[in-house]
Amino acid sequence: MSAYGIGSIMRLLHLDSAARRQGFSRRLSARYADAWRAAHPDGHYTYRDLVADPVPFIDEAWTQICDTVLAEGLTDPRRLSEAVRTPAQRRAWDVVEPLLVELVDADELLLGVPMYNYSVPASLKAWIDQVTFPRARLTARVVVAAARGGSYLPGAPRAPFDHHERYLRDFLAGHFGINDVTFLTVEMVNALVDPSLADFREFHEASLATAWEAAEREVQ
Amino acid sequence: MSAYGIGSIMRLLHLDSAARRQGFSRRLSARYADAWRAAHPDGHYTYRDLVADPVPFIDEAWTQICDTVLAEGLTDPRRLSEAVRTPAQRRAWDVVEPLLVELVDADELLLGVPMYNYSVPASLKAWIDQVTFPRARLTARVVVAAARGGSYLPGAPRAPFDHHERYLRDFLAGHFGINDVTFLTVEMVNALVDPSLADFREFHEASLATAWEAAEREVQ
Repeated sequence: MSAYGIGSIMRLLHLDSAARRQGFSRRLSARYADAWRAAHPDGHYTYRDLVADPVPFIDEAWTQICDTVLAEGLTDPRRLSEAVRTPAQRRAWDVVEPLLVELVDADELLLGVPMYNYSVPASLKAWIDQVTFPRARLTARVVVAAARGGSYLPGAPRAPFDHHERYLRDFLAGHFGINDVTFLTVEMVNALVDPSLADFREFHEASLATAWEAAEREVQ
Repeated sequence: MSAYGIGSIMRLLHLDSAARRQGFSRRLSARYADAWRAAHPDGHYTYRDLVADPVPFIDEAWTQICDTVLAEGLTDPRRLSEAVRTPAQRRAWDVVEPLLVELVDADELLLGVPMYNYSVPASLKAWIDQVTFPRARLTARVVVAAARGGSYLPGAPRAPFDHHERYLRDFLAGHFGINDVTFLTVEMVNALVDPSLADFREFHEASLATAWEAAEREVQ
């Protein structure tokens, strides 16, 4: 429920970051979003495809706005734009402001996130780098629809290489103080295409079935 | 020394990823690059600024080329372009091919990498996502000129949140089998601007002095 109290409109912000348009993380996040909209017919739903509509990397001007916010002690989130001084800073602000507004307004954040090279896709990290802005406060519940080629569960040989789920948990807790994070994860996707992983196909299918069912059950 | 044997030209590929043009990671990587060029007057030096000249995110077409390479069993790196079939795939290949060529040719890879939000900048992750391509083999030594706002050394409260040095080590070892990775790291940069971290200013200055000296000493 939003900061405006009982009876106000619930807001879901849904971001996808997979390169594959039919990737498991996208299908799973779409299923959750569909169930959420059915459960919240009056809810407000915002969608961003971070691959089709990419967020630019932060640049010098973005850092200058942050420096001004901190140096001048601006603490009111509604007054951050007063820190914008140059045309380059105006362009940077025009990118980050709508991202901040829709994130801070959200009651719930739904992220479609495949693992790429042991971490999150660059498309999602570009968004994370933008919205990690001074004074931005987030109180949303977070649901992550995840997919990964191998297994990184405790006990798996590659478990220490998990800079994907562990990274998102550390970032959300460390920066925003958010510990209410639910992962719906499809494991071992590569078993579908890599003959050397054929023995893990059942494991993959079981994790898919579990995540698929949970995508409806986890809607609050 | 390159695959072409004794007497051939040494090649350094230098990438920067910091938003701040005067950031510590950029100053440190520039110092290493200057020392390398002095030590290798006939060496070949390639520079990419991943913020000024950003690498796009991988997309559906990129994944289609990878799928074709694997499905058709193309194993010769020089024949990967045979997997390109559509105009969108051609555009994706025109992005990734030069990145792969300069990476595979490099004897040494120098990365300027600040920590952003406990991880590497999105600008670097976009490059990582592009070059993690089937059949790409890398045998370079890697030097990382790093900077981070806090401290993530063993024993520090935030040490478990290090998805920066640990991430790069895991990625380079896990994907490319590279364990020859040297970090030159400036710690606790935020002590310069955050009054609550003033006690760590000497610690920051000592780490800067050490990294600055090592940037010349580590050149081989």
